[in-house]
Amino acid sequence: MQIGMVGLGKMGGNMTVRLLRGGHDVVAHDVSAEAVASAAEAGATGVDSLEALVAAMPAPRIVWVMVPSGEITERTVRTLGGLMDAGDVIVDGGNSRFSDSVALAASLAEDGVLMVDAGTSGGIWGLEEGYCLMVGGTNEAIERLSPALETLAPPDGWAHVGPVGAGHYVKMIHNGVEYAMMQAYAEGFELMAAGDFGIDLHQVAEVWRHGSVVRSWLLDLTARALDADPGLEELDAWVPDSGEGRWTVQTAVDLAVPTPTIAAALFNRFASREDNAFGQRLLAALRNQFGGHAVKPAEGGHE
Amino acid sequence: MQIGMVGLGKMGGNMTVRLLRGGHDVVAHDVSAEAVASAAEAGATGVDSLEALVAAMPAPRIVWVMVPSGEITERTVRTLGGLMDAGDVIVDGGNSRFSDSVALAASLAEDGVLMVDAGTSGGIWGLEEGYCLMVGGTNEAIERLSPALETLAPPDGWAHVGPVGAGHYVKMIHNGVEYAMMQAYAEGFELMAAGDFGIDLHQVAEVWRHGSVVRSWLLDLTARALDADPGLEELDAWVPDSGEGRWTVQTAVDLAVPTPTIAAALFNRFASREDNAFGQRLLAALRNQFGGHAVKPAEGGHE
Amino acid sequence: MQIGMVGLGKMGGNMTVRLLRGGHDVVAHDVSAEAVASAAEAGATGVDSLEALVAAMPAPRIVWVMVPSGEITERTVRTLGGLMDAGDVIVDGGNSRFSDSVALAASLAEDGVLMVDAGTSGGIWGLEEGYCLMVGGTNEAIERLSPALETLAPPDGWAHVGPVGAGHYVKMIHNGVEYAMMQAYAEGFELMAAGDFGIDLHQVAEVWRHGSVVRSWLLDLTARALDADPGLEELDAWVPDSGEGRWTVQTAVDLAVPTPTIAAALFNRFASREDNAFGQRLLAALRNQFGGHAVKPAEGGHE
Amino acid sequence: MQIGMVGLGKMGGNMTVRLLRGGHDVVAHDVSAEAVASAAEAGATGVDSLEALVAAMPAPRIVWVMVPSGEITERTVRTLGGLMDAGDVIVDGGNSRFSDSVALAASLAEDGVLMVDAGTSGGIWGLEEGYCLMVGGTNEAIERLSPALETLAPPDGWAHVGPVGAGHYVKMIHNGVEYAMMQAYAEGFELMAAGDFGIDLHQVAEVWRHGSVVRSWLLDLTARALDADPGLEELDAWVPDSGEGRWTVQTAVDLAVPTPTIAAALFNRFASREDNAFGQRLLAALRNQFGGHAVKPAEGGHE
Repeated sequence: MQIGMVGLGKMGGNMTVRLLRGGHDVVAHDVSAEAVASAAEAGATGVDSLEALVAAMPAPRIVWVMVPSGEITERTVRTLGGLMDAGDVIVDGGNSRFSDSVALAASLAEDGVLMVDAGTSGGIWGLEEGYCLMVGGTNEAIERLSPALETLAPPDGWAHVGPVGAGHYVKMIHNGVEYAMMQAYAEGFELMAAGDFGIDLHQVAEVWRHGSVVRSWLLDLTARALDADPGLEELDAWVPDSGEGRWTVQTAVDLAVPTPTIAAALFNRFASREDNAFGQRLLAALRNQFGGHAVKPAEGGHE
Repeated sequence: MQIGMVGLGKMGGNMTVRLLRGGHDVVAHDVSAEAVASAAEAGATGVDSLEALVAAMPAPRIVWVMVPSGEITERTVRTLGGLMDAGDVIVDGGNSRFSDSVALAASLAEDGVLMVDAGTSGGIWGLEEGYCLMVGGTNEAIERLSPALETLAPPDGWAHVGPVGAGHYVKMIHNGVEYAMMQAYAEGFELMAAGDFGIDLHQVAEVWRHGSVVRSWLLDLTARALDADPGLEELDAWVPDSGEGRWTVQTAVDLAVPTPTIAAALFNRFASREDNAFGQRLLAALRNQFGGHAVKPAEGGHE
Repeated sequence: MQIGMVGLGKMGGNMTVRLLRGGHDVVAHDVSAEAVASAAEAGATGVDSLEALVAAMPAPRIVWVMVPSGEITERTVRTLGGLMDAGDVIVDGGNSRFSDSVALAASLAEDGVLMVDAGTSGGIWGLEEGYCLMVGGTNEAIERLSPALETLAPPDGWAHVGPVGAGHYVKMIHNGVEYAMMQAYAEGFELMAAGDFGIDLHQVAEVWRHGSVVRSWLLDLTARALDADPGLEELDAWVPDSGEGRWTVQTAVDLAVPTPTIAAALFNRFASREDNAFGQRLLAALRNQFGGHAVKPAEGGHE
Repeated sequence: MQIGMVGLGKMGGNMTVRLLRGGHDVVAHDVSAEAVASAAEAGATGVDSLEALVAAMPAPRIVWVMVPSGEITERTVRTLGGLMDAGDVIVDGGNSRFSDSVALAASLAEDGVLMVDAGTSGGIWGLEEGYCLMVGGTNEAIERLSPALETLAPPDGWAHVGPVGAGHYVKMIHNGVEYAMMQAYAEGFELMAAGDFGIDLHQVAEVWRHGSVVRSWLLDLTARALDADPGLEELDAWVPDSGEGRWTVQTAVDLAVPTPTIAAALFNRFASREDNAFGQRLLAALRNQFGGHAVKPAEGGHE
């Protein structure tokens, strides 16, 4: 099938390659001319503007938008929507907030443009292994998109999970779960590193991969990371977070669902980026106030 | 090789079968005559006492003890140790506390009996898939045990992780990580169930298994469980915990390692078994005290 | 001074009484005629509509709105704003979301009506002890309001904490802190109840009130509650939450500030209201899947 | 009454002064001759050894031991016990682990020496305000000790909470609650500091002290600390913990009581002392593995 791809970064660029390998006709655009040239070299039709992209595709069109989430996604989708025709489909493949996707879809629907929200997981491994795709939208739109989904995903690796918004909702929660799983391993390996047995962390990661209850793809990556740098000495304890972990916790609060591990994982990422945290300084100040702890820590217990 | 197996329950019984399939000579004992008969039928030499087991095996012996952790394990190992000779090996394959294993091994060592502690993961799936085995002890003892480990584990599925105690230490942490991972999925799926999109939880579990970052064996089981009973309506929200999750948190506290997700997972299991928790009733009492909330909840926010 | 009071429930009614006792002239309105009659009996001028309230007060007016937070507050404030004149002041004394207050104030400002947001703490005790008031708005508005604030608050019990929105921001966080403090006591008293020493909880609450580090007003209430019902047997473990605890966590997530205790306290309230939680049933399902735990729990530890 | 005091540090020294002011006869010992001299100057009978202390007191004796918890306490109490007579009373006023106190008391009881465990709260403020004392032991022992307790505590500030061990049990939980309360304030004030309203933290601490639900002694100290150093710029985000917080969490795990806020507070103290935490580096490593995040963080969200 023919599909437009807007955004040719690490994700969109690889997806373009995978679509081309799957025999699809890809019309590719990015703000970087270099990225467009690279896609063209791989076999795509490169275009230098959204207008050119729309002009290069006969209706009914399907265009996959794969740009950083937030304002850029919204602006890109809205601009595209203004250029496209009733019956065209725009896929938001980024990590947009599900409520934003619902609103954006409603806005596009006024002009008859259909929106699909596709939660996309797999990172840089997706090029070879396929992307797990959680897709929301109407049956009609997703049926037309399905040949591309079949190519992008591994076998059984995509699903139509509900109306528009549902794709990003499921992907949001996916990332929340991922945060907590990563944190679970992080705690376990830190505990092994802290104990007295001189545990070889890479060896444990490897053996857990074979037959244990905790085997997983994240554990495979853990083993790779510990193989490359057993003490993780080349890394800083500084962990960014994308919006989806935050939205998961905020949504849980809206829905009154307790999510202690997801919240703890998120808070640990926040804490990793704090320097001389105010709250901890207040604790030190209070200890000083009630116990004179700064002066004679040896008796520090008498709180 | 010849190996004794003491304890022929779900775990020990299956391990006996797997060892027999692997061509080993198993001398099997359990307090249940029925379990012994069943092992004998599968090809083991059944014996009706620890004395008979020791008598049936020429030195140097290797005996795997697979009984419920705690007092029974200690009593069984001590009794066996008293019957065995210097140079014999006892394997504690249960979920003993690592510090208990260290102490027990020191006690056996006084009579020259070697102890190996084997953390065993895999549950009822281990019979077919193999057990992940994390083993602690001396090189000599583990070398002699290795033919059995090769059979019990899947390829690359066992490791000598350190001196005696290390096996149960690593297994303890394995279970702590497992608790947090299970909790992560539980939160995510509850959140999907609570949202407005009418998500098909089984479908999501299946699609996440293919190409997503959160794919894992626990997710495979989640998909199986949701396939069998999509709304999990036949289950109670009542979750036991074995000792290892508790020991993980207590060890983390001893080592001053923050383990918020493992602790949260453990606390949630505790909470699942509380009925009309006192702490929550105290919260209700306080709300009533400061706001008369029980009387006029409509203005309940003015705390 | 003259002040209008809209909303004569538990909070607004008591504040009216306190204002009257302080010598102020209160024009009082509520949708309940009974509440109006009661305020009139206490000395207020009762009116049966917002229009009548505005008509009864010469400009420049100050009207305190004390209705349940959310839609009712917004509607009431907007309606009042439409009736009032430039230079008039509306005080939102409820538990509104701070961002809503900022937006509402901006809307009122288009007509020259000033808004003050007053976070109000003290519950039913405020009538006698005074209300702690955290007030946001312009210097001019708050100066005009200050005689009422002096009466409503105990000595040193009100503060102008910033521009409009700041009052509800500080009150929101106040409630988040309160949730975590309540939870801290709840955990401690549950732990005392669970231990082996037969602790008299009321006795401990009383002794902690005198000289201990944890003495507080919430502890005073704890002692009262335990005095009235030592085993808290007349209460259910069911704890509502108002919006402010939720907003605190959501704001913390927006600001990337780790708030583990506030979140834990909120999640515990959510959990107290869950019946047969889906997440916990999923944990039970997983245990069943990997270990056949439902069948032979005695060996349940081999996860 | 006559009472021996062993340990004249910040706590024991101040308690000696308070006892002397109350008209008691104090026989005082410390390993520091300087501390003994200082107590003698205040009116105590200074002695330079435990032997001298026992010799200076006619039976039946009461000796209060106020030395750092742990090995020193145990050694001091055991030595004293060996020197004393049946019917004498030793008070352990330190922060000992309750189970250690139970064991120590059982050991002393073999020689007829009675032990009382006194949990002591109040810090450096206790000298003037009195110490909150939670006391465990037999009725007989505590009755004999009560004149000293009346002097040391503020009115209603001591209680006989149960048999020996109960005093330290209640004090342990007191400290666990204290950790969580401190953390609650720390989170709240950090959140105010992080927001956009330019909140004056000292002003808020002050106003909350008057009429708010969260008023407490810890809040009084918070206000003092913020008065002295509004930005807490002279402090490091480094927070020690004494044993009691840890024991609270470990005991909660033993008793299967969920204590999420106490555990979170403890973990935050641990985290405050971690430098480049291994677990956080593992998170960074995993992000790098699955997303190439280190290379192109701009698209970091596609996890």
